[in-house]
Amino acid sequence: MSTNAFFPNINPIQYEGPETDNILAFRYYDENRLIGDKTMKEHLRFAIAYWHSFCNENSDPFGTGTRELPWAKHSDPMDVAKARLEAAFEFFTKINAPYYCFHDRDIAPEGSSVSESEKNLQEIVSLAKEHQQATGVKLLWGTANLFSHPRYMNGASTTPDFAVLCHGGAQVKAALDATVELGGENYVFWGGREGYAALINTNMKRELDHLGQFLRMARDYGRKIGFKGNYLIEPKPAEPSKHQYDFDSATVVGFLHQQGLADDFQINVEQNHAILAGHTFAHDLQTASDAGMLGSVDANLGDNQNGWDTDYFPTDLYDCIHAMMVMLPAD
Amino acid sequence: MSTNAFFPNINPIQYEGPETDNILAFRYYDENRLIGDKTMKEHLRFAIAYWHSFCNENSDPFGTGTRELPWAKHSDPMDVAKARLEAAFEFFTKINAPYYCFHDRDIAPEGSSVSESEKNLQEIVSLAKEHQQATGVKLLWGTANLFSHPRYMNGASTTPDFAVLCHGGAQVKAALDATVELGGENYVFWGGREGYAALINTNMKRELDHLGQFLRMARDYGRKIGFKGNYLIEPKPAEPSKHQYDFDSATVVGFLHQQGLADDFQINVEQNHAILAGHTFAHDLQTASDAGMLGSVDANLGDNQNGWDTDYFPTDLYDCIHAMMVMLPAD
Amino acid sequence: MSTNAFFPNINPIQYEGPETDNILAFRYYDENRLIGDKTMKEHLRFAIAYWHSFCNENSDPFGTGTRELPWAKHSDPMDVAKARLEAAFEFFTKINAPYYCFHDRDIAPEGSSVSESEKNLQEIVSLAKEHQQATGVKLLWGTANLFSHPRYMNGASTTPDFAVLCHGGAQVKAALDATVELGGENYVFWGGREGYAALINTNMKRELDHLGQFLRMARDYGRKIGFKGNYLIEPKPAEPSKHQYDFDSATVVGFLHQQGLADDFQINVEQNHAILAGHTFAHDLQTASDAGMLGSVDANLGDNQNGWDTDYFPTDLYDCIHAMMVMLPAD
Amino acid sequence: MSTNAFFPNINPIQYEGPETDNILAFRYYDENRLIGDKTMKEHLRFAIAYWHSFCNENSDPFGTGTRELPWAKHSDPMDVAKARLEAAFEFFTKINAPYYCFHDRDIAPEGSSVSESEKNLQEIVSLAKEHQQATGVKLLWGTANLFSHPRYMNGASTTPDFAVLCHGGAQVKAALDATVELGGENYVFWGGREGYAALINTNMKRELDHLGQFLRMARDYGRKIGFKGNYLIEPKPAEPSKHQYDFDSATVVGFLHQQGLADDFQINVEQNHAILAGHTFAHDLQTASDAGMLGSVDANLGDNQNGWDTDYFPTDLYDCIHAMMVMLPAD
Repeated sequence: MSTNAFFPNINPIQYEGPETDNILAFRYYDENRLIGDKTMKEHLRFAIAYWHSFCNENSDPFGTGTRELPWAKHSDPMDVAKARLEAAFEFFTKINAPYYCFHDRDIAPEGSSVSESEKNLQEIVSLAKEHQQATGVKLLWGTANLFSHPRYMNGASTTPDFAVLCHGGAQVKAALDATVELGGENYVFWGGREGYAALINTNMKRELDHLGQFLRMARDYGRKIGFKGNYLIEPKPAEPSKHQYDFDSATVVGFLHQQGLADDFQINVEQNHAILAGHTFAHDLQTASDAGMLGSVDANLGDNQNGWDTDYFPTDLYDCIHAMMVMLPAD
Repeated sequence: MSTNAFFPNINPIQYEGPETDNILAFRYYDENRLIGDKTMKEHLRFAIAYWHSFCNENSDPFGTGTRELPWAKHSDPMDVAKARLEAAFEFFTKINAPYYCFHDRDIAPEGSSVSESEKNLQEIVSLAKEHQQATGVKLLWGTANLFSHPRYMNGASTTPDFAVLCHGGAQVKAALDATVELGGENYVFWGGREGYAALINTNMKRELDHLGQFLRMARDYGRKIGFKGNYLIEPKPAEPSKHQYDFDSATVVGFLHQQGLADDFQINVEQNHAILAGHTFAHDLQTASDAGMLGSVDANLGDNQNGWDTDYFPTDLYDCIHAMMVMLPAD
Repeated sequence: MSTNAFFPNINPIQYEGPETDNILAFRYYDENRLIGDKTMKEHLRFAIAYWHSFCNENSDPFGTGTRELPWAKHSDPMDVAKARLEAAFEFFTKINAPYYCFHDRDIAPEGSSVSESEKNLQEIVSLAKEHQQATGVKLLWGTANLFSHPRYMNGASTTPDFAVLCHGGAQVKAALDATVELGGENYVFWGGREGYAALINTNMKRELDHLGQFLRMARDYGRKIGFKGNYLIEPKPAEPSKHQYDFDSATVVGFLHQQGLADDFQINVEQNHAILAGHTFAHDLQTASDAGMLGSVDANLGDNQNGWDTDYFPTDLYDCIHAMMVMLPAD
Repeated sequence: MSTNAFFPNINPIQYEGPETDNILAFRYYDENRLIGDKTMKEHLRFAIAYWHSFCNENSDPFGTGTRELPWAKHSDPMDVAKARLEAAFEFFTKINAPYYCFHDRDIAPEGSSVSESEKNLQEIVSLAKEHQQATGVKLLWGTANLFSHPRYMNGASTTPDFAVLCHGGAQVKAALDATVELGGENYVFWGGREGYAALINTNMKRELDHLGQFLRMARDYGRKIGFKGNYLIEPKPAEPSKHQYDFDSATVVGFLHQQGLADDFQINVEQNHAILAGHTFAHDLQTASDAGMLGSVDANLGDNQNGWDTDYFPTDLYDCIHAMMVMLPAD
């Protein structure tokens, strides 16, 4: 495997302290520094999000993408997936991240049938496993993208279309298989389109029961194939749906208890989503923690001024710098 | 020209009164009804937006398009443009709309060079002129899309990149030529990316002066080629930019006076944009009207619950129905 | 009892249909009209809020009161309370409302000790009982005001000060006694200051457990003295606290289940509070209904533009008219 | 004059550096430290707000005051005013603030007639002048409270009631006299109720012209009596009005130009008000500065979570500590 194909003049990033002039250095994160009885690396367990870092071309509803991804220039989507995987592991090791995480469709393209999609995923998972073994980078969590394909426009587990539900179930099964194969420590559900655009044509109670049933079946399948980690729900109040069922930590805690899921599920709290719900980040962390359900943190930075997800409309320099870091050309 | 290619089983929509069972009928809009000394048609002058009705595939930041546009199935973008034009005029006449409006890139595709783009536009404009003459449908306004192409990521007139500014200038010139050629009654500027993502790396005062200079040059060119209508600014507080310079009616009124543009420019007020700015629609209409600058109204319907542009995330049945109306398949 | 002391030239309000010119007439509410198998009066069961109608002087944080209440001109607070009671029942009967509802401190003043406060309340309750019997007007619900006195600045059941908790308990006991004595059909808890101003000095988990314990004790006492109605929680996300524990319907449903209160408690949904929580009114009604917990509706009208409780800053003519209706002078 | 009556065991606050354990010490503000060619004291020119520090009892729409002000215990309002003045100057000197600022009604009570109100104000101004001379503390600005008295419920300069307008004019005249007498360096207009509750019964254009006329007359009177400083407008988008005419910096810049006030008026930008308007603080500062109109800064701290003025609902520990600092009892 190449280790210098995509970021050729970049050396591994080191801790150099707050006074360094090197812009590609850690100023505060010193992975070996002891805080209490654990190192910063053990406390923080940073993971790189495959989607934001290697897939997102930074388009928005008003314009096409502004990033050129050198690994995306192949014509065959599987070639793109393989090049992207190499770029990703080069990045993980150069930035010295102990973990990564992905949606199924981030790492392998959807095929023309369920079986072709599964075959694509399995092929990339085999390569990812080799990369993990070669580098020591581990999988923090896997998940299934049940929102980008138009079939999921009305949800996956809460869609009124049974054929779509079957697609969603097949995707979750394959994503759980992949997560177990790669030793993933958690499995995440972000309920992208599990919600409604208009309450007037939605049976919310029935949809919530369908969501619960779907999650119980996924949990049982995961346990059956040996998955021992936590399942995680990531709350978000809206976007892309007008209302999303996993509104905030308090709503999810209540839902998990009512649906018999409290023993297996925890919450992945995202700062940006917490403020969209009218809370502070601290509030939603505390609510999850008080319920014994704080499983993970999505440490992005929302914007109090604008009522949208800042992952998709970056609104400050932090976001711009973050995006630019992975925009560096290959030559 | 075919008049039955895209909506073959749809007859022209008629006024049938509030009690009709026909879902494709006007219940309240009776174009010939006198209100005071004018008919409803003369008061309201409805125009169909080319972009929303014939171009938008209803994608969002979390998923690909959910509409299949039968006129978009050709491989050559000019063939798409010609089929779309036929569909548009079939729609205008069947819905009995007296006006339409467009961005340059809605009606004709960007080419591989400025001159190819201009040639594409001129070719479609010739066809549109024939359609207008054959149907009596008129052009309410034209505008240039200075936000979808990645080159405009930091604005067109307020970009720090002079080559991009030149592109923007060329596009506005060609769009003004097209508007005049088609007898357009207004010309619109929506300042999509004329704003900032981060104030810390933006010289706002200088950018506002550049915006003013750009508008004065555009005005002068339009007047020179015989355009006698109003120029319109459409305020919006944010999205896609974190802050947009044309924040609301009051901000635009002040800007137009300070930049020497008050005699030629008016305001196009959009409901959705007014509520994003923290106002009511009535407030922004009144502010524009009190300044003698109420030029036009974009009569969409925003959503008080979500802080985003509902044109792109439809959040109620009204939006869904609107979108469905033009989704009807060709066979 | 006088029946003409405060609104002397006002006759009982009648249904006169949508076309009437009489501004003091019902245009749509016809109490005897059958809708399905019930009359409008049986479906809607309107209740007049004592606080808004007879106590509120319409002050705000920036100014003193703008209403002069003719019944408030006495120097002895008990004389005010008695005059207010007469005004209230004159109003209830003239507007033909079947129900009313109150906080303890709305109908009787706080005394200089707990026992004096209780004595004041009992005296007014006796008079109110006579009024109810004379007019047929019934009590929809009673509640205790645990937020206006400075002692409750950090909550009543969630305060860290045990003496304050005791005050709150005594008030709820007396308010339950009063509600039962007057045949009240429900008993309401609005958690005004049960929340926090700053999470950093708050043990939220412990405070929520204290809130649950307080509600269980109140429920048990009510059942012991013969109260058979529903207890109601009225959700609100914030104001006066930065965060209030009864954030929205979904949060309250989860809380009631976790605290063993689900069999006795229902939800009183308020439009204004639902939109402050980032929902529609319909959403919070549906959420409560789906949980089998929709107990009552506070049918006011919030304002999407401003992030505050419009009961206290009226923002439209509807509110102004509503307030004016009970401002009519006595002569 | 006593210098130890209200904060008897408090010594003047000193700069002690970031590591001090003394909670009543400056950690970062060192008034003598040179930054560029000026000291911090010269750059920052801190002023203590009389209203927040010495008048506000911290009530809110849901409860009565939670602060006991030892200087407010007298029965005669003029005795309260005199004691408050002593407490204020003791505070100014102990916290080492070079400036203070006030509303007329903060320092002297409204009387039963315009002339009695003016006499009260003059009497306190004489005492304040002596305090200023004795301590060297200066007046940064004066202003008139044209919003707390119920007569101003529909504005002062924009009220439809001419008698109320006269009251407002008289108050501004007396407040300008007081400001000049005390050597005030600025004079502020905060348009508390210059706005509307409902657009439908408001002639906004006419009200804005009345506001302009009122400000021109006030400016002319001030210049006539020798006031040479800046007049300042403090923008705020809403609260107590649903809409306030001085919405944000951009709106005020446009208004000042249109009303012929641009040469004499500048802007006092408040953080909390900027975020209520949907901006960042930096944005509104930059807008005022770019227009050459940044006159002053109200350096409070708003709260992104709640849509109200946090001066009146403190929502974090910073606010609580701030309030507590001046709550210390006299013994």
